[in-house]
Amino acid sequence: MTAQRTAHLGFARLDVDRAQRTGTPEVVYAAGKTPEQTVACLAGLLDAGAPLAWATRVDDATAAAVTSRWPDAVLDADARCVFVGELPEPVGDVLVLTAGTSDGPVAAEVAATLAACGVRARRVDDVGVAGVHRVLEVAPDIAAADVVVVVAGMDGALPSVVAGLTDRLVVAVPTSVGYGAAFEGLAALLTMLTACAPGVMVVNIDNGFGAGVAAARIARSRDTPRP
Amino acid sequence: MTAQRTAHLGFARLDVDRAQRTGTPEVVYAAGKTPEQTVACLAGLLDAGAPLAWATRVDDATAAAVTSRWPDAVLDADARCVFVGELPEPVGDVLVLTAGTSDGPVAAEVAATLAACGVRARRVDDVGVAGVHRVLEVAPDIAAADVVVVVAGMDGALPSVVAGLTDRLVVAVPTSVGYGAAFEGLAALLTMLTACAPGVMVVNIDNGFGAGVAAARIARSRDTPRP
Amino acid sequence: MTAQRTAHLGFARLDVDRAQRTGTPEVVYAAGKTPEQTVACLAGLLDAGAPLAWATRVDDATAAAVTSRWPDAVLDADARCVFVGELPEPVGDVLVLTAGTSDGPVAAEVAATLAACGVRARRVDDVGVAGVHRVLEVAPDIAAADVVVVVAGMDGALPSVVAGLTDRLVVAVPTSVGYGAAFEGLAALLTMLTACAPGVMVVNIDNGFGAGVAAARIARSRDTPRP
Amino acid sequence: MTAQRTAHLGFARLDVDRAQRTGTPEVVYAAGKTPEQTVACLAGLLDAGAPLAWATRVDDATAAAVTSRWPDAVLDADARCVFVGELPEPVGDVLVLTAGTSDGPVAAEVAATLAACGVRARRVDDVGVAGVHRVLEVAPDIAAADVVVVVAGMDGALPSVVAGLTDRLVVAVPTSVGYGAAFEGLAALLTMLTACAPGVMVVNIDNGFGAGVAAARIARSRDTPRP
Amino acid sequence: MTAQRTAHLGFARLDVDRAQRTGTPEVVYAAGKTPEQTVACLAGLLDAGAPLAWATRVDDATAAAVTSRWPDAVLDADARCVFVGELPEPVGDVLVLTAGTSDGPVAAEVAATLAACGVRARRVDDVGVAGVHRVLEVAPDIAAADVVVVVAGMDGALPSVVAGLTDRLVVAVPTSVGYGAAFEGLAALLTMLTACAPGVMVVNIDNGFGAGVAAARIARSRDTPRP
Amino acid sequence: MTAQRTAHLGFARLDVDRAQRTGTPEVVYAAGKTPEQTVACLAGLLDAGAPLAWATRVDDATAAAVTSRWPDAVLDADARCVFVGELPEPVGDVLVLTAGTSDGPVAAEVAATLAACGVRARRVDDVGVAGVHRVLEVAPDIAAADVVVVVAGMDGALPSVVAGLTDRLVVAVPTSVGYGAAFEGLAALLTMLTACAPGVMVVNIDNGFGAGVAAARIARSRDTPRP
Amino acid sequence: MTAQRTAHLGFARLDVDRAQRTGTPEVVYAAGKTPEQTVACLAGLLDAGAPLAWATRVDDATAAAVTSRWPDAVLDADARCVFVGELPEPVGDVLVLTAGTSDGPVAAEVAATLAACGVRARRVDDVGVAGVHRVLEVAPDIAAADVVVVVAGMDGALPSVVAGLTDRLVVAVPTSVGYGAAFEGLAALLTMLTACAPGVMVVNIDNGFGAGVAAARIARSRDTPRP
Amino acid sequence: MTAQRTAHLGFARLDVDRAQRTGTPEVVYAAGKTPEQTVACLAGLLDAGAPLAWATRVDDATAAAVTSRWPDAVLDADARCVFVGELPEPVGDVLVLTAGTSDGPVAAEVAATLAACGVRARRVDDVGVAGVHRVLEVAPDIAAADVVVVVAGMDGALPSVVAGLTDRLVVAVPTSVGYGAAFEGLAALLTMLTACAPGVMVVNIDNGFGAGVAAARIARSRDTPRP
Repeated sequence: MTAQRTAHLGFARLDVDRAQRTGTPEVVYAAGKTPEQTVACLAGLLDAGAPLAWATRVDDATAAAVTSRWPDAVLDADARCVFVGELPEPVGDVLVLTAGTSDGPVAAEVAATLAACGVRARRVDDVGVAGVHRVLEVAPDIAAADVVVVVAGMDGALPSVVAGLTDRLVVAVPTSVGYGAAFEGLAALLTMLTACAPGVMVVNIDNGFGAGVAAARIARSRDTPRP
Repeated sequence: MTAQRTAHLGFARLDVDRAQRTGTPEVVYAAGKTPEQTVACLAGLLDAGAPLAWATRVDDATAAAVTSRWPDAVLDADARCVFVGELPEPVGDVLVLTAGTSDGPVAAEVAATLAACGVRARRVDDVGVAGVHRVLEVAPDIAAADVVVVVAGMDGALPSVVAGLTDRLVVAVPTSVGYGAAFEGLAALLTMLTACAPGVMVVNIDNGFGAGVAAARIARSRDTPRP
Repeated sequence: MTAQRTAHLGFARLDVDRAQRTGTPEVVYAAGKTPEQTVACLAGLLDAGAPLAWATRVDDATAAAVTSRWPDAVLDADARCVFVGELPEPVGDVLVLTAGTSDGPVAAEVAATLAACGVRARRVDDVGVAGVHRVLEVAPDIAAADVVVVVAGMDGALPSVVAGLTDRLVVAVPTSVGYGAAFEGLAALLTMLTACAPGVMVVNIDNGFGAGVAAARIARSRDTPRP
Repeated sequence: MTAQRTAHLGFARLDVDRAQRTGTPEVVYAAGKTPEQTVACLAGLLDAGAPLAWATRVDDATAAAVTSRWPDAVLDADARCVFVGELPEPVGDVLVLTAGTSDGPVAAEVAATLAACGVRARRVDDVGVAGVHRVLEVAPDIAAADVVVVVAGMDGALPSVVAGLTDRLVVAVPTSVGYGAAFEGLAALLTMLTACAPGVMVVNIDNGFGAGVAAARIARSRDTPRP
Repeated sequence: MTAQRTAHLGFARLDVDRAQRTGTPEVVYAAGKTPEQTVACLAGLLDAGAPLAWATRVDDATAAAVTSRWPDAVLDADARCVFVGELPEPVGDVLVLTAGTSDGPVAAEVAATLAACGVRARRVDDVGVAGVHRVLEVAPDIAAADVVVVVAGMDGALPSVVAGLTDRLVVAVPTSVGYGAAFEGLAALLTMLTACAPGVMVVNIDNGFGAGVAAARIARSRDTPRP
Repeated sequence: MTAQRTAHLGFARLDVDRAQRTGTPEVVYAAGKTPEQTVACLAGLLDAGAPLAWATRVDDATAAAVTSRWPDAVLDADARCVFVGELPEPVGDVLVLTAGTSDGPVAAEVAATLAACGVRARRVDDVGVAGVHRVLEVAPDIAAADVVVVVAGMDGALPSVVAGLTDRLVVAVPTSVGYGAAFEGLAALLTMLTACAPGVMVVNIDNGFGAGVAAARIARSRDTPRP
Repeated sequence: MTAQRTAHLGFARLDVDRAQRTGTPEVVYAAGKTPEQTVACLAGLLDAGAPLAWATRVDDATAAAVTSRWPDAVLDADARCVFVGELPEPVGDVLVLTAGTSDGPVAAEVAATLAACGVRARRVDDVGVAGVHRVLEVAPDIAAADVVVVVAGMDGALPSVVAGLTDRLVVAVPTSVGYGAAFEGLAALLTMLTACAPGVMVVNIDNGFGAGVAAARIARSRDTPRP
Repeated sequence: MTAQRTAHLGFARLDVDRAQRTGTPEVVYAAGKTPEQTVACLAGLLDAGAPLAWATRVDDATAAAVTSRWPDAVLDADARCVFVGELPEPVGDVLVLTAGTSDGPVAAEVAATLAACGVRARRVDDVGVAGVHRVLEVAPDIAAADVVVVVAGMDGALPSVVAGLTDRLVVAVPTSVGYGAAFEGLAALLTMLTACAPGVMVVNIDNGFGAGVAAARIARSRDTPRP
């Protein structure tokens, strides 16, 4: 590993070469940070030469602080993400499915992350398995995609069904949608981990960001054909 | 409640009027009983006038003890059940689906219980959602049934899909089939409890007996039209 | 399966033929939806020809939005349900028991769901097993019912006792009532799943809607005698 | 606290004054000890002047080692206990109820412990709530007892019902009897802790010894009237 | 069982003969009830002839409603209990220990319950095992008591130490005091259930009421010497 | 979806067009099947025209039954897999890392699955983070791979470190290696799901098969450049 | 043990000789205490002769009450600690690492505790394993320290990596930072307990105080060379 | 970090410079390894110049293989450890306490690890808190020790009591001794993590090796006085 630069902010040490090393820049996780800390982190990343810096899980105060500092910052309120700088031209095609309307905010974070990673996202919402014909209806969309991200709470059954229909990989995102025995996303998480169809990989509950990064890398691998 | 009889065996108190009171006779749960205790319980029930007595979860030693005492006892080895006496003429039509071959023993217990309750069972195995067309193939069977029992381990996703296809009730039986995050049936149990389609009711993990009794009562309710 | 229609709202895909397919229309789960989204879903279902559309888990803002849009909508505040359109004439007889007064809101959701499904509900509250004579007092009500729904939190012991008294099926609804080792309904859920009396089927914690749909189907099966 | 004696065996330090201090002698928990260690502990307690020494959870090898060393030792095979020395004359009256036959070994440990503590035990087995009339039948036994020990696995519902019938205290012992969602006694444990009737106190799963000691102390408190 | 009276309030069925049957009157659990419902329940119990009616877990609004209806009601703010009617003359002697100051409200509920049951309570607070000499200091208090109630959160280790010092029974109450791996009282609950000293019995987390009832019955058993 | 063929074996319904539909043939999960059933499933798949059929989780009896039926079947004892037919020529490059020697059998299943999917696997074992220089040593191997599969039990920390070094995707496989608070793989599973580096996706505990299928699809996506 | 003094405040019994006995004075845990109780405890400790009294987990109201009573009290707002009296001159060198910025408040409690115990703390923040070079950068700091405290949420992987680099002990503090499968710190706790490198010891989730006391004792042991 | 050597065995990569880097050599965890693999690992470490190589968790077959290869290897059967080479001269003084006899094997692993690390261990067994005088009896031993290791299963209460008596650090080792709600060591683990006395640090359940390494480092820090 060649020498890696670190930007020291006191409360944070920015990993400014992460984009070069891992293909994904350090992204600011705003939960648990003050608005000032988030602004400082974004500034530090931009100062180190990043063309785009962004933060996830921003609340209203943080969004206001960022857009006040950088008036042309772009806020994606559904996804609770804010972007400073230029979004890359998107390539590829990732299908983002949700099982229900309440899974929307997590799917929005997936889509925003894909956009920041330069990958095109298509969202189709509310295709839960309680009406399996709705899943079959989107089979052509699935077939056309580089990879499918499936966002589902409650029983988390959608990835099993989708993975059985396609040779595309399925990135499964359990959500905390549901009540009672959904146990804040645990039911969906276990369902997805034990999906009877292979080709399903799982990220943390409500982790739209992680799913977006993973899907972007899968999609982009088609752009780097083996020599 | 009119006076209820109890047969005292010392180690057990047989609830000999249960069939009359609840429609289902006391059934001997052989796990945790010695072969001698199981034989004594069956004898006690027959002595009290039951036309049919049966035991579930019988191991080889218990099966041998029962068939030695009553040579025309019927052993259902797959279901680990043994029956002494006359099975009733079956009526109705309950469809018993399994998600995978390994769910077979639990489905066999469902079917054996239905037979003992006088209800006809049809089994269709291995219709997991990883090949959802297999589920669609059995749609006519589902439509023709009084009620559907769905037996599934691992992700437990099948009841959600079946319940979305039909106006029949679904009795869901999670099984302990699977490994790792299946946690001995917990994953399937939570999935079924949080099924996004209504019309799903759940019994204990591997509880084929309970599912059979419930399905039999639902099926038989069609035989007692409202006056 | 014949072709199924879907109404596309962007954020939702309404399964408008679900009533015809499953006997229960798509019902709007308002938790996690904005008031505007709930109104749009109800409108979409009515536009597709549904005689009755309804939403569950409505908060005050959603209730106000719905009744403002449809002034003759019926709000059931206890059950947190709102109905737009004509409730069907009720048939049958479902007994809804609660173990304690605090289980009331869930029982109200059961009853409201039964009403929307066209089935008559009778509620008897506060018959916990700590005074088992109260359970015995309602034995005639139990005997007269098509099916019994038992709603209980804390120790969740009531379904075991009721199921031992009757040949009626018991639909058991654990509630999140209780504290400490009740673990938000987990204790009652496990108790009900392991009930020593057969004939008990379980739905998710606090899931009055699911219990109501299931009970309605059982009750109505008496109206469709086997040919 | 006056000075307390300790007998040093190297691998163990026997608390030989415990009987005088707490009313219950140190009892040898044989699980996890070699037969030789159990014999040495019993010998140490007898050497220190105990009129009776006993061990719980003894397996066959340990039982053989003890009865070989002390030929008039008394083995209670059901309870897996062995006693060396004189059992005291029993006083009082403790009722030990089981919900099912499979709970028998734990109830046997309760009864053996009571005997060693000099308290009379009456056992009534198999009075599960699935036939609640069986519980009502034993109401006179309950009323006559100093205290009631209730041993139950699966749904663990029996203590709630018993406690609602009586002013006697109920010592509840969950057992690991059951399968699936019984989770090795967890379901029964939670049920008993959340029993809706007051007067129920709970000990560890399968802990017949602890229940016996507690019940003996309650029973004996009637023999020490307040001055 | 002789016929038992029930007072019907619609939302509640008061078990008005419970005091006569179980020695403890039905007590109103105010959590999850409206102030009006709590007042109605208290009134119902008083109308049926109870000399004392009381409610636990009352919030400010309920306390105000009760004291407005019955101006000489007694509010115990620490214990969150309110009493209407005459408290009995206390007898006996129950020692109530807490491990820390934060366990105080639960101990207050224990003491209030004892008072309502006619038993005298002595409280000694903050005798945690981190300074075991504080426990030894109270040994004379322990020896003088009829029974000891130990209230502890966090590690829940106090009952083990106390039970090793005395032949008095220990009623252990885990509390939800603590953070992190205390898991809302789970750590203390498991510690108490697995206490290595016999003579410990456990009630639900934060269940001061249940502990008070149990301790009162044990204390009073000394007043009913065996004939 | 075009019509899909199903081969009916009675106890199983083979999804013979799965390879064409999803890129991965139906693979026989031998755990929970008799040797005869596994042989029959393999035969059914071959009869339907599959060039290669294989089974996972085979025990000795099943391995013997398969190799007796097809003498040129290839048994991979480490991976507990058996193959009947021709393995495809491998392409691509997947790096399979283990944290410790005990994770070897799961890694062997990953490698065997990759081989069956026509993808080349390179294994590097025992690069746990307790000697992080060992991870840095393999950085060139990581950089050269299409995708990295990381197999780890105990603390499951390796995927976080690897993902921070590379722009390759990491497929993380928790194993049940470890004791105590490893809780049969739960610790590693949670660690991997909460990995602080993006680009990590997780499969079920010990699920080498699922990881192999996923990694193969990622690797092969480089062979299908976007048009 | 020589006689130990106790200061009686009614609601609390201060263990005023704890500093002499254990090297650490009783520290007031303000959570769950009223501001008045915290002030009274601090006063009691000072009255008993302590040169320094301090409280942890203070909220704004308590901080205000303390600084109003003792105007030269020192408030450490990040650490939520307040100190009354003289801080000792620091010796030694403890390195406090955090994996991320959000772990800062817990690290601040560690550092404040060390200061109160008379030990010097150096903090280095945000050295998560997603950029393992950041960990390697601080290797000289690690080598120079008496002991290292590692504070980490989410995957909790940092202690494993640090412990593999050094012969210094690692005191690991899991934090509740994270979401979903982090389960309020459970994931980090299990990771740290199963760390594959020896030399890691773990304290409760978010327990900066406990970690500080432990690290101070380790550091100070270098000042008490063996005679 | 200077370059670190690695010995490649194919199935393992030995971290041969670990002793120099971390003060503790790589130790072979024999569970999950074949006897041949364990022998090869030990040989690899010795070949790389280690004066002492050792393995933990050895079963009989592995012990035989090791002692056959190195006839003067030393087997500690209680601790299930085997040593090849020269044990260092011990310094320091670590007290190892067990709560009960059944905790002995874990304490033996602690002591064996200390011996291998060159630190003297004194064991005192069976000082459970059910006889707290036994703990007070060993107070002089505690005071004389460099550090105390406390090994306890069941309620895990001993570390809280010990830590309250001393200024020595307590390394707490929960064991899987116990049944029922001990949940394989979970109860003891949670108790120790929430110990109300500071100065307690916890390692994994049954992890005698980790506790020994940690205690050795604490003890040895007294031999490296600050310059």
